[in-house]
Amino acid sequence: MLESYQIFKRTVNYYETDKMQVVHHSNYIRYLEECRMDLLRQMQVNYHQMEEDGIMIPVLQVSCNYKNAVRFGDTICIIPKIERFHGVKFEMSYRIYSEDMQTLHTTAESQHCFVDLNFVPVRLRRDFPEIYRKMTELEGKDLMPVGMAS
Amino acid sequence: MLESYQIFKRTVNYYETDKMQVVHHSNYIRYLEECRMDLLRQMQVNYHQMEEDGIMIPVLQVSCNYKNAVRFGDTICIIPKIERFHGVKFEMSYRIYSEDMQTLHTTAESQHCFVDLNFVPVRLRRDFPEIYRKMTELEGKDLMPVGMAS
Amino acid sequence: MLESYQIFKRTVNYYETDKMQVVHHSNYIRYLEECRMDLLRQMQVNYHQMEEDGIMIPVLQVSCNYKNAVRFGDTICIIPKIERFHGVKFEMSYRIYSEDMQTLHTTAESQHCFVDLNFVPVRLRRDFPEIYRKMTELEGKDLMPVGMAS
Amino acid sequence: MLESYQIFKRTVNYYETDKMQVVHHSNYIRYLEECRMDLLRQMQVNYHQMEEDGIMIPVLQVSCNYKNAVRFGDTICIIPKIERFHGVKFEMSYRIYSEDMQTLHTTAESQHCFVDLNFVPVRLRRDFPEIYRKMTELEGKDLMPVGMAS
Repeated sequence: MLESYQIFKRTVNYYETDKMQVVHHSNYIRYLEECRMDLLRQMQVNYHQMEEDGIMIPVLQVSCNYKNAVRFGDTICIIPKIERFHGVKFEMSYRIYSEDMQTLHTTAESQHCFVDLNFVPVRLRRDFPEIYRKMTELEGKDLMPVGMAS
Repeated sequence: MLESYQIFKRTVNYYETDKMQVVHHSNYIRYLEECRMDLLRQMQVNYHQMEEDGIMIPVLQVSCNYKNAVRFGDTICIIPKIERFHGVKFEMSYRIYSEDMQTLHTTAESQHCFVDLNFVPVRLRRDFPEIYRKMTELEGKDLMPVGMAS
Repeated sequence: MLESYQIFKRTVNYYETDKMQVVHHSNYIRYLEECRMDLLRQMQVNYHQMEEDGIMIPVLQVSCNYKNAVRFGDTICIIPKIERFHGVKFEMSYRIYSEDMQTLHTTAESQHCFVDLNFVPVRLRRDFPEIYRKMTELEGKDLMPVGMAS
Repeated sequence: MLESYQIFKRTVNYYETDKMQVVHHSNYIRYLEECRMDLLRQMQVNYHQMEEDGIMIPVLQVSCNYKNAVRFGDTICIIPKIERFHGVKFEMSYRIYSEDMQTLHTTAESQHCFVDLNFVPVRLRRDFPEIYRKMTELEGKDLMPVGMAS
């Protein structure tokens, strides 16, 4: 199991800002995806390989709550959590912090589904038991970031 | 007041697709912004001029519910609605349909705030009474698309 | 043949600007793609169908010369030209103007190749003679925009 | 002076792919910007601070030569070079490699100008002598990547 979580860190790119001088709100949705892919990597799940094997994880729902704008020059830290896993669908939450973890910039949630290449839901337990096991283990667990005092 | 609404139509761009062969979910958030800007234009509000006058409308919250994937070659129609307007903040909802209006691809919601260039909320009623009046008129109203049978 | 060209017009989206208060330079590359797709449509070539038939047109080279920044609130007009067509590869040029055609914002060039889904070049003359014919007809021709004095 | 260059490495994001199953060509232009910002950081130049001080570096020209498509799951390495520096304008070149440096995916070039917030060229030597000195030192130099045999 994922004993400790290496916090997903991300420097803001210039092209992600808009004329309001802050990161455009649509880009946070992309940061969440980057964070999910990173979490999968830390869970030893290779999403690239998963798609080769015929399984995809599209987004069913996403919501974002913007509290404090992120600006060019900022680095963000994202802490994800698998809130619920129902075998096929799952729900995640995210907290996007400043680099020093003192400012909570954004909270977000997303829902996903394991599907085949025709967007038909797959029975993960039967067809991908290893991924099923890993998802089950992480469900509802708060990830303990590496290097943070407990 | 806005007697009839010219439906916001939008052809999907190739660069908005991803390797799942569908429009990447983050792009819907951008379509919503395009739709809002278009609605403002139809309300005779020039957002470009508004920002010149020192007032911006950042996004506080956004959520998207993906029902049917949109693909390259598709044209979408978006019907927005100003659900609630509280003088400074307001909430919108959106339905994203196929071109023939037969398929509901996505539903979405967003919250916004009128602020000055320092992100401080502005008193719209006092400082921009014309915009205040137009927002009030549209609050809670279902827009009647032009050319659709009532 | 394409007797007259309906100029590709495009309003700048807010999310395409950056904190320099102008359109981010990478987005012009996307505008060029939109313009190419539009030109294909005007040539009665359905790119979506082409890909269904197993033929794609990736970009081999692109260059952009930025003269005058485009800003939010601006509408641009793009005039494309098929400079050279070699049966498999072709080269295009583009002039991006302001809405009144008085300001030349950007000039650009791109090179492309007709390939199959494995990125292997296809013999257009043999396999897609209709597209071959249309490309040949337009090669080197200056498109005459509709509604402009000659 | 910049004695050794820490190669700019970048994992491809899912949202940067398109339905051709490869990275959309416009995104390479963004990778170049990321690489430039990274180079500035390695030169101890803080671009964020530069803009606070009233100096920006817009792009005048960019070109990209696509040789080998980059795919999701790939990591790229970019080696930049300041080809020429004329006091106000400068030209850069880039080579985008695979992670193992065995495949050259893309070559690119860009031209830039140091300007103030009104897009008026600034005299770098007089107003920002430290940046002027660093640019002069790197002009025409091949950066020696850290950890590579010479």
